Amino acid sequence: MEGAQAVREAITCATVLELFVTERAAQRHPELLEACGAPVSLVTERAAAGLSETVAPQGIVAVCAALGRSVAEAVRGTRLVAVLAGVSDPGNAGTVIRVADAAGAGAVVFAGETVDPHNGKCVRASTGSIFHVALGVAPDPHRAVTACHQAGLQVLAADAGAGRNLDDLVDAGGLAAPTAWLFGSEAHGLDPDLLAVADHAVAIPLYGRAESLNLATAAAICLYASARAHRRRSGAGPIT
Amino acid sequence: MEGAQAVREAITCATVLELFVTERAAQRHPELLEACGAPVSLVTERAAAGLSETVAPQGIVAVCAALGRSVAEAVRGTRLVAVLAGVSDPGNAGTVIRVADAAGAGAVVFAGETVDPHNGKCVRASTGSIFHVALGVAPDPHRAVTACHQAGLQVLAADAGAGRNLDDLVDAGGLAAPTAWLFGSEAHGLDPDLLAVADHAVAIPLYGRAESLNLATAAAICLYASARAHRRRSGAGPIT
Repeated sequence: MEGAQAVREAITCATVLELFVTERAAQRHPELLEACGAPVSLVTERAAAGLSETVAPQGIVAVCAALGRSVAEAVRGTRLVAVLAGVSDPGNAGTVIRVADAAGAGAVVFAGETVDPHNGKCVRASTGSIFHVALGVAPDPHRAVTACHQAGLQVLAADAGAGRNLDDLVDAGGLAAPTAWLFGSEAHGLDPDLLAVADHAVAIPLYGRAESLNLATAAAICLYASARAHRRRSGAGPIT
Repeated sequence: MEGAQAVREAITCATVLELFVTERAAQRHPELLEACGAPVSLVTERAAAGLSETVAPQGIVAVCAALGRSVAEAVRGTRLVAVLAGVSDPGNAGTVIRVADAAGAGAVVFAGETVDPHNGKCVRASTGSIFHVALGVAPDPHRAVTACHQAGLQVLAADAGAGRNLDDLVDAGGLAAPTAWLFGSEAHGLDPDLLAVADHAVAIPLYGRAESLNLATAAAICLYASARAHRRRSGAGPIT
């Protein structure tokens, strides 16, 4: 994690193993050095730039323990989960983590040939949300689906080619149950094998002439539709 | 516009002024040379690469007439509009055009200090949708809001700090009317001056611990909420 804000989140929500700071950063953020609970190493500006992946390094970098856990562990007790299967773009994956957190999802699962959630771009795009959700990792996406089923979640596959439409599913009350949403790669969608084990494939309606949505916007629409259905069901909001 | 798919869209939906192709691209896409209705210039691979902004140029580039028009013209007769005010990231802006098109918006307005919609990154991120919506351009965002009001649209400002929540607005039927959604920059949000002239400021509920949403995901949630409200109102879908 790099940058003061990210390191602050890491100290609060994760395990910091080591902290590297420049003298300047140490003077600006003495509270982080005190709070991190890990060895602190003073480094030169040049060394800090070498550790950094950004254009304007802030001179503060934390090494954290890996966040991933088994899918069964990550999804236990959750009512809303996002599963990424075959998503290769780290920026997209991080943005999905961010919107999943915003929608109140308890876990995000990285399954199959998906980018490493610890990829720097993914971490930065999540803007701290990588620490707010449980992070599941499953090399085999079928096992991820099985783990979701075993945790009592229905598994809905977001699939542009599906006959069933999100709006109709909402109208039919199909989002009230605890749900894991399955998202595939923007280029190729979900594997047919994986689609087959989902409970339903669901298409987001395209009202205009766009041929598809980008991954993060599709995830936003699906996850917020679920969040709203759960909230209405729990009586937290008025039913119209 | 560059690449066969983008040039095809441009020929169908816009005015192509000139087409540049390599010999190889001309052989692969003879139909585009015939259909473009503009002078065609054969260029070397090297010249095509010089015209291109992408890493893997396809050897086909169309020069098109500018797409922007006045806001009054762009929003006339529409029921759903996205207005970008102060959005500087071209990829974000293009993704909003794409999701606005998908949600059935008739126009996207680029107002104030917003990136040029003809920026190559914006065009590419829109994946063709820049041709599917009417594109309004207004140097003064206040005039854009006035034009929306004059066209009979209510103006809702997406604002993370608003007291009114999107879910409650949906429940109250507040999205049934023709609507222009106002989106500000991801970093600074909307200008207080501009917020003041909107009919309502609306916050997307954050159920988890995320502090905010990225612009395109926020736009997706607002625009699809409107699309759904309009569809239900028009009787095209069942009312639960």
